[in-house]
Amino acid sequence: MNISIIVIGDEILLGQVTDTNSGEIARIIGSSNWTVNRVTTVGDNAADITSAIESSLATSDIVITTGGLGPTKDDITKSVLLSIFGGELVQNEEVLQNVKKICEKRHIELNELTRTQALVPSTAKIIQNRAGTAPIMWFERGNSVLVTLPGVPHETSQMMKAEVFPRLLSKFGEDVTVSHRNLLVYGIIESKIAEILDSWEDELPECLHLAYLPVPGYVKLRLDGVHKDGKYINELLDRKAVELHKLLGDAIFADEDLPVAEIALKELRKRGLTLSTAESCTGGNIAHNITLVSGSSDVYMGSVVSYSNDVKVRLLGVDRSLIDNLGAVSEPVAMQMANGVARATKTDCSISTSGIAGPGGGSAEKPVGTVCIAIHTPDREIVTTKFFPGNRSRIIDRATTVALIMLIKSITV
Amino acid sequence: MNISIIVIGDEILLGQVTDTNSGEIARIIGSSNWTVNRVTTVGDNAADITSAIESSLATSDIVITTGGLGPTKDDITKSVLLSIFGGELVQNEEVLQNVKKICEKRHIELNELTRTQALVPSTAKIIQNRAGTAPIMWFERGNSVLVTLPGVPHETSQMMKAEVFPRLLSKFGEDVTVSHRNLLVYGIIESKIAEILDSWEDELPECLHLAYLPVPGYVKLRLDGVHKDGKYINELLDRKAVELHKLLGDAIFADEDLPVAEIALKELRKRGLTLSTAESCTGGNIAHNITLVSGSSDVYMGSVVSYSNDVKVRLLGVDRSLIDNLGAVSEPVAMQMANGVARATKTDCSISTSGIAGPGGGSAEKPVGTVCIAIHTPDREIVTTKFFPGNRSRIIDRATTVALIMLIKSITV
Repeated sequence: MNISIIVIGDEILLGQVTDTNSGEIARIIGSSNWTVNRVTTVGDNAADITSAIESSLATSDIVITTGGLGPTKDDITKSVLLSIFGGELVQNEEVLQNVKKICEKRHIELNELTRTQALVPSTAKIIQNRAGTAPIMWFERGNSVLVTLPGVPHETSQMMKAEVFPRLLSKFGEDVTVSHRNLLVYGIIESKIAEILDSWEDELPECLHLAYLPVPGYVKLRLDGVHKDGKYINELLDRKAVELHKLLGDAIFADEDLPVAEIALKELRKRGLTLSTAESCTGGNIAHNITLVSGSSDVYMGSVVSYSNDVKVRLLGVDRSLIDNLGAVSEPVAMQMANGVARATKTDCSISTSGIAGPGGGSAEKPVGTVCIAIHTPDREIVTTKFFPGNRSRIIDRATTVALIMLIKSITV
Repeated sequence: MNISIIVIGDEILLGQVTDTNSGEIARIIGSSNWTVNRVTTVGDNAADITSAIESSLATSDIVITTGGLGPTKDDITKSVLLSIFGGELVQNEEVLQNVKKICEKRHIELNELTRTQALVPSTAKIIQNRAGTAPIMWFERGNSVLVTLPGVPHETSQMMKAEVFPRLLSKFGEDVTVSHRNLLVYGIIESKIAEILDSWEDELPECLHLAYLPVPGYVKLRLDGVHKDGKYINELLDRKAVELHKLLGDAIFADEDLPVAEIALKELRKRGLTLSTAESCTGGNIAHNITLVSGSSDVYMGSVVSYSNDVKVRLLGVDRSLIDNLGAVSEPVAMQMANGVARATKTDCSISTSGIAGPGGGSAEKPVGTVCIAIHTPDREIVTTKFFPGNRSRIIDRATTVALIMLIKSITV
């Protein structure tokens, strides 16, 4: 199976919008025994769209396009598809009804431009888009299929999962199992892990492959297996994962590729513990990461983002004299912040951060990237100072991740 | 000029990591008169990397690769480059010194794998990577150039800006001006804007192009101009932007393509106003967006993320009877939250949100997506109820954006 994705849109090529659709399509495809071989991104430009489609069709069994189908003038994909697959634009009644229904639901007036969504090439099979107005088109040439998905991320995701992928599976489905095991490692850098695992990796059988995915704050290890025999490959992966645990020990803090906030919430929930946060330099990012997880409200009570010293004193009960003498970026202040927010919100556990995210505010003693992180649990109080490299958003992200990993370790180890 | 980017990495093709490098490279290139024509993403696989490089080299003046150069076993780009450009691996002393220095600075031991970073093809010109260990390689074939950038986003960004782009400009620089005007529109959907602008767009001269970039919560309009005469095109763009203001009126809330949080901070700073936030359903995301902006601490004092009702009462002074009678997701509670946080943090302005981000917690009366937003300024108190479509993270994002736009409008109009 050879699978190509084509992402269409000037806004992507200009770097104004980050493409997340190809990743989402790849993840949905990856739930099967298939993987995506290539993603091509082109602008809203007939020549480039045509050449990307033609060259992908020549080498691929499945080509999935995303974007380039909105109702406004910069979207020209439909006419390119007509010139490639032939046919003419015809009005599709079912699409028109769908467009009307969606406009009604969103209290939007149906105008001429929106109405053009119902004009579709006569050479395409039409799949209704239940999440938006642009219909999904399914073209065939020889044994290859080209499917067009809309550019709006949630529409692409929903329709790929519900409609397109099941149809592709039933047309092309094969009979091998692809399976993965994920291990999240904290405190050892990528090249050091590679050194530890060197001889172990050399002895891996053909059907297994280890990939290193460094992300800010930790390293993901993904062990991939492919085999005709699903039971065999899964047992082999389990066995190899146990070996990795022996080799890397405590540095592995999770066995699932989930956001660290989600892992923290699961571990807290298991133990019946509640959580709050007091954030200075991370500025609400820990709270945001936690509350992105649905159902977080049974564990997470809230946060005080104490950006100013005044708020640290007034809402968290930090001693002003401590701030005056040691500075806000100091371990005693971070610990008082964590204890203060646990008290104010009546939670069992809390996390606090106080640091210098930059670009300004650094000094020789406390350079940009210095972050004090404190953890309060029913059993212990931990506070430490870390130094994170990079710019403001990297420092914020990394401090967020490390603070959450510290919490996970302090309740699980 | 034809420019291709090749993104290398299994983790991208599997959808485990979102590529942001190609967008960053495109933005840097876009600061000149060039645009990127195509982005191709392939896995860590010799055949696919080879074919992507060969086909890009055949059509492009400049090919930039990113990723595939780490020290671990899944990175095979270097051997592909050797087979394409010839030569052999030689040790580069300057790279070795750089690797040693970085390892020292990061308190990392220099191991064999890291040391291999200093082995480079003899056919490449080497540009030192001052942000990381993987050196940048510059190859030439005929009139085309291929440059390899590392996969770590901040290294790619830094080295592209500081080293690679200036060299490409001096080799290929041309003499036209590309310029843009951005207008951010709130409260009118894309197809309605297109209807309003229909005849105006038809009359645009050849050298101008209007692009619609709907983002969650608002629509970006980008007017692009390309011309030999820089003064002419900039004056024309200014004139056309004034026409757009007349056609779209108050719906335009900003003239710069900046994050809404940054626009809000600029407008507050101009007026000497301070800000705080009280977030329930947005869970810290407004605070996070604000504090991502460097220098926000002179305007922004902090936030209370009142995820539980208890925290709303205890830290924000919301009447418990109001919550009991009307529910936490109600306009009076949102208004009390905004007023409460302004009082607690002694700020001039504040924003609050209380809503149902889902997937659970909705009812017939207050479905998932219902969000009450309140704005407190020295002059007024505004509270409204919005309904946002989509899943949890879309609802959080959109509520964040709309709350910030409401603040901008309430202080600027």
